[in-house]
Amino acid sequence: MPRSRARMLELVFPKDTNYLGTAFGGWVLSLMDKAASVAAVRHSGGNVVTARMDGVDFRVPIRVGDAVALDAQVVGVGRSSMTVRVDVYRETMTTGAQELATTGTFVFVAVDEAGKPCRVPPLPQGQQTPSARPDPEARP
Amino acid sequence: MPRSRARMLELVFPKDTNYLGTAFGGWVLSLMDKAASVAAVRHSGGNVVTARMDGVDFRVPIRVGDAVALDAQVVGVGRSSMTVRVDVYRETMTTGAQELATTGTFVFVAVDEAGKPCRVPPLPQGQQTPSARPDPEARP
Amino acid sequence: MPRSRARMLELVFPKDTNYLGTAFGGWVLSLMDKAASVAAVRHSGGNVVTARMDGVDFRVPIRVGDAVALDAQVVGVGRSSMTVRVDVYRETMTTGAQELATTGTFVFVAVDEAGKPCRVPPLPQGQQTPSARPDPEARP
Amino acid sequence: MPRSRARMLELVFPKDTNYLGTAFGGWVLSLMDKAASVAAVRHSGGNVVTARMDGVDFRVPIRVGDAVALDAQVVGVGRSSMTVRVDVYRETMTTGAQELATTGTFVFVAVDEAGKPCRVPPLPQGQQTPSARPDPEARP
Amino acid sequence: MPRSRARMLELVFPKDTNYLGTAFGGWVLSLMDKAASVAAVRHSGGNVVTARMDGVDFRVPIRVGDAVALDAQVVGVGRSSMTVRVDVYRETMTTGAQELATTGTFVFVAVDEAGKPCRVPPLPQGQQTPSARPDPEARP
Amino acid sequence: MPRSRARMLELVFPKDTNYLGTAFGGWVLSLMDKAASVAAVRHSGGNVVTARMDGVDFRVPIRVGDAVALDAQVVGVGRSSMTVRVDVYRETMTTGAQELATTGTFVFVAVDEAGKPCRVPPLPQGQQTPSARPDPEARP
Repeated sequence: MPRSRARMLELVFPKDTNYLGTAFGGWVLSLMDKAASVAAVRHSGGNVVTARMDGVDFRVPIRVGDAVALDAQVVGVGRSSMTVRVDVYRETMTTGAQELATTGTFVFVAVDEAGKPCRVPPLPQGQQTPSARPDPEARP
Repeated sequence: MPRSRARMLELVFPKDTNYLGTAFGGWVLSLMDKAASVAAVRHSGGNVVTARMDGVDFRVPIRVGDAVALDAQVVGVGRSSMTVRVDVYRETMTTGAQELATTGTFVFVAVDEAGKPCRVPPLPQGQQTPSARPDPEARP
Repeated sequence: MPRSRARMLELVFPKDTNYLGTAFGGWVLSLMDKAASVAAVRHSGGNVVTARMDGVDFRVPIRVGDAVALDAQVVGVGRSSMTVRVDVYRETMTTGAQELATTGTFVFVAVDEAGKPCRVPPLPQGQQTPSARPDPEARP
Repeated sequence: MPRSRARMLELVFPKDTNYLGTAFGGWVLSLMDKAASVAAVRHSGGNVVTARMDGVDFRVPIRVGDAVALDAQVVGVGRSSMTVRVDVYRETMTTGAQELATTGTFVFVAVDEAGKPCRVPPLPQGQQTPSARPDPEARP
Repeated sequence: MPRSRARMLELVFPKDTNYLGTAFGGWVLSLMDKAASVAAVRHSGGNVVTARMDGVDFRVPIRVGDAVALDAQVVGVGRSSMTVRVDVYRETMTTGAQELATTGTFVFVAVDEAGKPCRVPPLPQGQQTPSARPDPEARP
Repeated sequence: MPRSRARMLELVFPKDTNYLGTAFGGWVLSLMDKAASVAAVRHSGGNVVTARMDGVDFRVPIRVGDAVALDAQVVGVGRSSMTVRVDVYRETMTTGAQELATTGTFVFVAVDEAGKPCRVPPLPQGQQTPSARPDPEARP
């Protein structure tokens, strides 16, 4: 059964901030793209290219000293495409409290050695409906 | 009349690539967020925060040695929100040929000193319908 | 009961390589320090400073396109110090195969607001003896 | 007729500052070199190498939250060399006010596939005398 | 006689700091690895790979605006391995005062073109016992 | 007597290259600015700002795997200004051979706490005429 998930963890350092002192949105988007692509490669077992990004909501600002936990999971597959949902949690490190800061959906296309789209395996049973609230113990 | 547009230009260097040798998607998203936020700040005349990102299509891979030209324009405003369309062109520098590589839509919220949403000016006349093909002479 | 663990995941991009084309050792050390410090902050519930690093073995080179999975766990505590073991796995993303690439031990000191060393909680039962082979399912 | 100009736009983030909290001079020089090289490649239609840099004046410090607008233009050509003038404007984003912060002159040499100097096209009519005050509407 | 030493100098910029505002430990480790590897390459005259790192003590925090002076010296050789001691000094630039901030020991293995361990030259006479306090005049 | 010199050493990694695979000119300029500013701060004993850069000649391309040795020295002083000459050597690490790759001249202004220009000490005797070929043993 294919693995179809990737969890990442990052700390927010001054180099990751914008001129307002909060985490730069583009930096968060970079982390999301990276986590989503690992989930897609793990599912497909080969190379993938980013095709589309949708519905990215920024709900809570992230600050220097916060940890950022990402949870990316393949939640749908087509013939050669994979839909990956990414949830980004802001963690106050000293208390361990996490809250959902950003979410988004990515579509990747699996490609073969020649860069042509190729088939991807079906989703594991029960993974089509991602939990709205992932298991905290499972987070990075 | 508010300025509501920002054009950026970047070169793709090896540090900007993923493990496949093409421009890392997260790096392109960072550039788009940056260009869009400049357009939004120029329109609103104050600070803005990224609220949402939608409909980002990656059509053409971008490679080391390409130039990347971004054109971000405010195309809609609400009470305190601004919708910014960003077009990303890949330029083959030696010929000057540009083709549309990526597009996307961002929503920003204007905030006052206390971080509370505040009003934004209306759009200049005639800017509601962005041209599908911006004037090449106007590109960076 | 304190959380005392942090798992991180990274992709190796060209920007992370040295002049031989493999992951730069200093970059791996940076990831290890970051993962270890999160485990220490989570355990202590406050700020920490790196005091010492020991026994870092580089066993297997890491290459562009590999994923790097880190597992940091507090394995010993003193009055104000914490010993954190970090295991770094190289993952071949397309197959999911992971092998231990690097290990190391860090010592952190918990500090209060004034930067003075302060007490840390005891280790949870059963955590004094870290498994030589962590549960693969638990990895990021 | 060759294009011979490049305009770039950047935001100053904390990662771009020196220990005094202003934009690091080396970062500004990097942007200037990048903009100038795009103008030179666009003019020559091939690869170029930086040969010389002169007369870089730093007039006004640039701060976090400023935008930086660069305007690079080929203003002279030899057999295989191109002289590029670069003007750097600091923009206060909320008001749109721009002032000249830095200027400089670069010389590039056009090279062929083998790295040997090769001929460059003549300058377009009327471009030999760069305006001291470029058209604000034309800025990025 | 082989050269077996490397001295580096760096400034601490905001981009190099962690969320506490001091130099990120991982950044210091990167500098140490880089300086040590130059000393090892200079001694061996060929490529080297990092095999081990030990006894890194962080004694004094390093802050934005400090200079960091590194002194790396090969202090022992085996058949194909080299032991390199690295001392890191924090310099208050305005007074020139330097104090030892961090020390550590690296082991490198010399490798040939095929990546196989190969012999390294013996140490120059008198270099086996590194001075505890290197000559200030000799620092970068 | 004021110290008035700074020597730095860097390795060229893939992240430092342009799209032609050689060290990005802007990266070299950043190193030069950094080395020159350390020499100026050491001489003046206070903060400095970059005022001007002149006569930077790029003579020899620098490649991945080369070491870069910089030698910055205050060679002239005015009331509040300092002229710093920077020589950049490319070192082939395996042989130790160094050749002059780039040179340049910077002018810095010493500033007091309020940012106003302030007096700088005179040059040490004999330093007005920098040697065209600095002592190899003295290089980093």
